[in-house]
Amino acid sequence: TGLAGGAMATRGELVLSLSRMRGIGPVDMSGATVRVEAGAVTEEVHRAAAAHGLTWPVDFASKGSSTVGGNIATNAGGVRVIRHGLTRQWVLGLEVVLADGTVIVPGGALEKNNTGLDLRQLFIGSEGTLGVITAATLKLTPLGRRPDVILLGVGGLAGVLRLFREARAGAPCPLNAFELFTDRCLARVMRHRAARPPFDGARPSHFALLELEAGGEDTPPAVLDWLGSLLERGLAEDAVIAQTPQQAADLWALREGISESLAATGLPHKNDVALPIAALEAFCADLDALFAARYPGYEVCVFGHIGDGNLHVNVMKPEATAPADFREQAAALDAAMFALVERHRGSISAEHGIGLLKKSYLGFTRSPAEIAVQAAVKRALDPRGILNPGKILDVGPPPA
Amino acid sequence: TGLAGGAMATRGELVLSLSRMRGIGPVDMSGATVRVEAGAVTEEVHRAAAAHGLTWPVDFASKGSSTVGGNIATNAGGVRVIRHGLTRQWVLGLEVVLADGTVIVPGGALEKNNTGLDLRQLFIGSEGTLGVITAATLKLTPLGRRPDVILLGVGGLAGVLRLFREARAGAPCPLNAFELFTDRCLARVMRHRAARPPFDGARPSHFALLELEAGGEDTPPAVLDWLGSLLERGLAEDAVIAQTPQQAADLWALREGISESLAATGLPHKNDVALPIAALEAFCADLDALFAARYPGYEVCVFGHIGDGNLHVNVMKPEATAPADFREQAAALDAAMFALVERHRGSISAEHGIGLLKKSYLGFTRSPAEIAVQAAVKRALDPRGILNPGKILDVGPPPA
Repeated sequence: TGLAGGAMATRGELVLSLSRMRGIGPVDMSGATVRVEAGAVTEEVHRAAAAHGLTWPVDFASKGSSTVGGNIATNAGGVRVIRHGLTRQWVLGLEVVLADGTVIVPGGALEKNNTGLDLRQLFIGSEGTLGVITAATLKLTPLGRRPDVILLGVGGLAGVLRLFREARAGAPCPLNAFELFTDRCLARVMRHRAARPPFDGARPSHFALLELEAGGEDTPPAVLDWLGSLLERGLAEDAVIAQTPQQAADLWALREGISESLAATGLPHKNDVALPIAALEAFCADLDALFAARYPGYEVCVFGHIGDGNLHVNVMKPEATAPADFREQAAALDAAMFALVERHRGSISAEHGIGLLKKSYLGFTRSPAEIAVQAAVKRALDPRGILNPGKILDVGPPPA
Repeated sequence: TGLAGGAMATRGELVLSLSRMRGIGPVDMSGATVRVEAGAVTEEVHRAAAAHGLTWPVDFASKGSSTVGGNIATNAGGVRVIRHGLTRQWVLGLEVVLADGTVIVPGGALEKNNTGLDLRQLFIGSEGTLGVITAATLKLTPLGRRPDVILLGVGGLAGVLRLFREARAGAPCPLNAFELFTDRCLARVMRHRAARPPFDGARPSHFALLELEAGGEDTPPAVLDWLGSLLERGLAEDAVIAQTPQQAADLWALREGISESLAATGLPHKNDVALPIAALEAFCADLDALFAARYPGYEVCVFGHIGDGNLHVNVMKPEATAPADFREQAAALDAAMFALVERHRGSISAEHGIGLLKKSYLGFTRSPAEIAVQAAVKRALDPRGILNPGKILDVGPPPA
């Protein structure tokens, strides 16, 4: 389910499928861990853990088909990162086959293990370039109590960021998620899914989807008071809070249905950038100016995990433009946008990885010296270059 | 403040002090980050963040003198790991000087940055063997609300583990800390600090110190109800909950004063092991049997971070034994104890690192293949072996 072409064989490479290695061991209730094979599907791990009141809090739209090995190899993100962090934080141990066939098992059911270089960290996010991850010991956490799901309408990105600061400092319960999408995303979802607009009156340009871990059966009065104060203080134009699990799912569907709706109603060109939160507003203003000056006809659909500084910038192909022309324009656009990302000290790939699609842009986020160190590590672990060759970077011979 | 000799020059190496590089940049309120130099003292970072309602949740007894660079180079642990994780989770960006003098700046104020190998992870916990960390961008988190501090007396390790499972699943508020110490540790602290026994009647063999993040001014009734039910169900022999900040500090002092009290009242031989939580009880039974069979006269003081499976096993020199004899016996004891750690798939160094003191025992936790990979990475980044030579492992020439 990768989005950067990291598992594509474009030059006749062998593709290794671990989809039949999907075993899920018994849940260790005492340590809150579970050992699984790399081909185990994310959602099946969730189910096995939930039977014991636990979960593996790596969660995103493709959980029904993504595998644990792929999640680890790409250090997957998702909608709970603001609360639980990236996949990296939820892997205690690995089993890895090295380039020469040696099997290592760095880490186990241990929270702490400061015994030399932490080799796990090297393989997590390495996109198959350093070894083949065949199994993992996962860290689990108690299943959250019933969450409150809230949609807020706001008149601009600055307002969403103000709301985020307010929520992080003042929300009466832990924040599980703080997601952003714009009216253009909503329009596409409504068109594709025939959904109703979430608010009766207001037509805000920006939406913030919040999930609070309230606990208990009913929404605590403190949450309702807090929402009221947001409206009173003009921090939100309108607000709706789910009253039932179905309403909560419907609100989440507005956010999680975006990718699918964009693809179903047009041809999106996708990007996944991260910025320091402090730079988000300035970056978006620069991006707006870039589009206004050079791509005035483009429909830009922005959504993402605002609490992590992570924006999915999707540009829709104009009806009148031929796909080949659009691809060419999009490549030029990427270079211009990544220059903005670089200027604001951001990342050209927040959670999708580099794979093949972002390879030529790596230099916008990593310096030549950093890329040289990456290459040196690759050469040290895979001197013949047989593991996922040509992904992330092309590794030449060592410097003289 | 390292405990494994990682910063010792034993063969005439140059020691590099960064203690004058202690700058702390402005706190970025929007992204909840701060950029600091490596010599910044942990507690000074806490103070700078607290002025903005934030904290860097890396916290341990030596925070008044330990530096951020050292914390990162050893991936320091401490008393909040159960809630907040190790230092690794709180570092967004680094500045590192490589062996050839090149400076790299992997990461910045970004939560997400999946652009190739995450070089930060390589340097975190590398104990100075791969590069010199000169600055870091730290991730901050809101200062916890007023915590409730509770001391429980329990009749054995099995009871402490039962209590931990109960607390993780059923405590009415998030668990900030779950610490263990035994009556022998308490006796040493009381002797050194002239402290009063925490309970009037009960004389339990084991103590669990819990910190719950309750919030609000007063202890919530749910916490008192929960404590009552623990006593009713016989899960604890006695319990005391701090009524004032001073009482909370006094309870914490019983735990945090142990290291100092052991050193002030005798000569401790220190170890810092981690076990899978599921294996803790069996390991401790094996350890008791080992001491009973081979070192019956030894006073063993066990304390630690039970929620992380991390035990500090301190053996006190018997009065009648000469220091040199004790050191020799302790080395034999270490080898026997580490064999138990290996059998139970634990770690010979949970949070102290390897440095010099644990170097010869690395093989109890890392396989020859893992050590070979560590050496390959070391050679790739420091081919001349000039960075903290001889620490963690001795790196020979590359395999033919």
